[in-house]
Amino acid sequence: MQTYKDLDKEQLEKRKEELLKIYEDYKNKNLKLDMSRGKPCTEQVDLSNGLFENTDNLFTRDGFDCRNYGLLDGIQEAKELFAELFDLSAEQVFVGGNSSLNLMYDLIAKAYIFGLNGFEKPWGKQENIKFLCPAPGYDRHFAITEQFGIEMITIPMKNDGPDMDMVEDLVSRDESIKGMWCIPMYSNPTGLTYSDTVVRRLASMKTKAKDFRIIWDNAYAFHHLYDEHDKLLNILDEAEKAGNPDRVYMFSSTSKITFPGGGISIMASSRENIAHIKKQISIQTIGYNKINMLLHVRFLKNPENIKNLMRKHADIIRPKFDAVNEILSKNLNGKGIARWNNPRGGYFISLNVLNGCAKRTVALAKEAGVTLTPAGATYPYGNDPDDSNIRIAPTYPPVSELRTAMEILSVCIELAAIEKILG
Amino acid sequence: MQTYKDLDKEQLEKRKEELLKIYEDYKNKNLKLDMSRGKPCTEQVDLSNGLFENTDNLFTRDGFDCRNYGLLDGIQEAKELFAELFDLSAEQVFVGGNSSLNLMYDLIAKAYIFGLNGFEKPWGKQENIKFLCPAPGYDRHFAITEQFGIEMITIPMKNDGPDMDMVEDLVSRDESIKGMWCIPMYSNPTGLTYSDTVVRRLASMKTKAKDFRIIWDNAYAFHHLYDEHDKLLNILDEAEKAGNPDRVYMFSSTSKITFPGGGISIMASSRENIAHIKKQISIQTIGYNKINMLLHVRFLKNPENIKNLMRKHADIIRPKFDAVNEILSKNLNGKGIARWNNPRGGYFISLNVLNGCAKRTVALAKEAGVTLTPAGATYPYGNDPDDSNIRIAPTYPPVSELRTAMEILSVCIELAAIEKILG
Repeated sequence: MQTYKDLDKEQLEKRKEELLKIYEDYKNKNLKLDMSRGKPCTEQVDLSNGLFENTDNLFTRDGFDCRNYGLLDGIQEAKELFAELFDLSAEQVFVGGNSSLNLMYDLIAKAYIFGLNGFEKPWGKQENIKFLCPAPGYDRHFAITEQFGIEMITIPMKNDGPDMDMVEDLVSRDESIKGMWCIPMYSNPTGLTYSDTVVRRLASMKTKAKDFRIIWDNAYAFHHLYDEHDKLLNILDEAEKAGNPDRVYMFSSTSKITFPGGGISIMASSRENIAHIKKQISIQTIGYNKINMLLHVRFLKNPENIKNLMRKHADIIRPKFDAVNEILSKNLNGKGIARWNNPRGGYFISLNVLNGCAKRTVALAKEAGVTLTPAGATYPYGNDPDDSNIRIAPTYPPVSELRTAMEILSVCIELAAIEKILG
Repeated sequence: MQTYKDLDKEQLEKRKEELLKIYEDYKNKNLKLDMSRGKPCTEQVDLSNGLFENTDNLFTRDGFDCRNYGLLDGIQEAKELFAELFDLSAEQVFVGGNSSLNLMYDLIAKAYIFGLNGFEKPWGKQENIKFLCPAPGYDRHFAITEQFGIEMITIPMKNDGPDMDMVEDLVSRDESIKGMWCIPMYSNPTGLTYSDTVVRRLASMKTKAKDFRIIWDNAYAFHHLYDEHDKLLNILDEAEKAGNPDRVYMFSSTSKITFPGGGISIMASSRENIAHIKKQISIQTIGYNKINMLLHVRFLKNPENIKNLMRKHADIIRPKFDAVNEILSKNLNGKGIARWNNPRGGYFISLNVLNGCAKRTVALAKEAGVTLTPAGATYPYGNDPDDSNIRIAPTYPPVSELRTAMEILSVCIELAAIEKILG
């Protein structure tokens, strides 16, 4: 196979005609295939149907009635289970409702309105505050900072995490940089895990702003595709060792362990940070749904059992990641118009097409019935400077649909590339 | 029985000695009785144990999988059930998580940071904003406004609702008055329901501030103690009729219908207000726990079934309200040192002792093992200008404990009154 840059105009025109014919055939099938969101499939959520098997007794082991008011920061056994999973102490853990995104939003809102532990002034009372945004990244993170009017600075992602030279340089000089979004494990969408060095540098770097905080969205901590899996350093430990115990707020949830719409979430940080924010949250709510916490602890049991459950998830979705790689390889290898990662966990495959071709590729796919995350969504303000990155979310569709969608996407990638080269 | 003001010093001293003896006897029993929060008792929450009976299939009637992501504003059948209950259209209803307090907090936060539908400027960008706070009222409401630094103006409660002459006068003159807390039915703690006239005046009054909003916490809409019950006018209808369709945000929940820690909540307003805030909430979360919504709709079924369930609640707690009235009457009638209401619904009895005696009464009770809501808590800033109001929450303790607690409280009321009179 020749790379496209070695083809002459005639060859490209010819290939374009072939592709257009295939494309039209797909279009005429009136397909409706959705690969836009990182959503577990039905077979995956079925794995947790046992969640409601033990509802006869809704009291904690200490005899607390989960059906009634109380326990702002969650039931003790849930705090302990998460503490064990993340190698923390239970006092560092706050257990919330069904959405860790909501906990992150609430954290930003509290930092903005009232200030967090150790703040001299709320963020909202300071001018032109900024956040560092490793990109490609998670569109919903960027949407939050954008809604709060926080300026976003794009940080390129390298193979071992965000570009730390750039990060350290910026935070050491600019006091208006107040925070940073991180998905440190099987990052959305690049699938890569921050190296120990990157974690240590984030934990220990000098920041001009004393109220600089890291939002550590550890969403995919247990979401391995293979038995031999990535490992992530405990940043809360590292931050404490480095003398920055209050720098990091970690978040996670069972959304992609049990039920995406009905799991439980956690926030973890230093004891002081958690004690401080508990006081603030006590004004916001009497407490989160403890019945769901209790059912989760009973169903998930212990880290070993969770590991087994996650292996079942992997067995369902690994073939989907494989199918994406197989079809993209078959159709595009050697053409020099696309590259993509083969993540060892998480929910996404990050695809880069020729610069200036992502939007067009996604539009072509859409017209042929394949919905992808909008091009650019993985960058702050939806603005991918290279117009090159496309996020593929392979978990939800059945393999057969996924294969069709990837065949179509391959055609669209080629078509957009030829259009671009022909100019 | 003589009123205390007709007793001379000697008689008072004698009575004080008698009371102190009884008080010491109670103290020596080392009791621990909690009447501080409006908390359903175990027998009440047991009424909803059937909630988890139908968990085999977690799909909505339209085939939507409640276990997975999606449906920001809740499942359609939940919206429709609440719409029917409150005589609204489903498009006016947003179904949330387990806490309506959290929805109210979130509303204030959004008004403060971003502004709501129809706002020219967020509240947080305006100076010295104020809220009207009918009092005695709900301490958690006041805690929210206090946290946001919103100045609170106490509005006296009359028999048919807040003092509307004062309310109308203030809002017509002062542009910095941006909102008002209301618990319009079986109000916390007075137990009274706003009259039709009051509702219409609130809906139609002229306000200097265009961004004046009413937080209508309809927490006790179905919480009648008797078959013949209070009725509340639909303020959303009245506000629309009066040309102020966007003035009112209504809140309610199933916290005291099913499970206080595990119910579902709603926010209702004009279609435009709901459409506007849905966009804002879409940044905050992907959605609330829909499994719990589905289980609630299946368990609660329809308004008639809810009425029957609420009748069972009433049968459990009515004897507790009766016991409070019986014991207070027996011990205090005719003494001129206390008056209290006999509510027809809700969760509280509002007790007024002699001016300057509430704090002392609560402290005496505490010392004898009876925990009450702190005196003053029912007023903005915890400041009851008369130091007279005490909130009694009779639902949680068993009747026998409640009777003991009320005997003790009666002694404390008398003791505090005598101390006060003797000076």
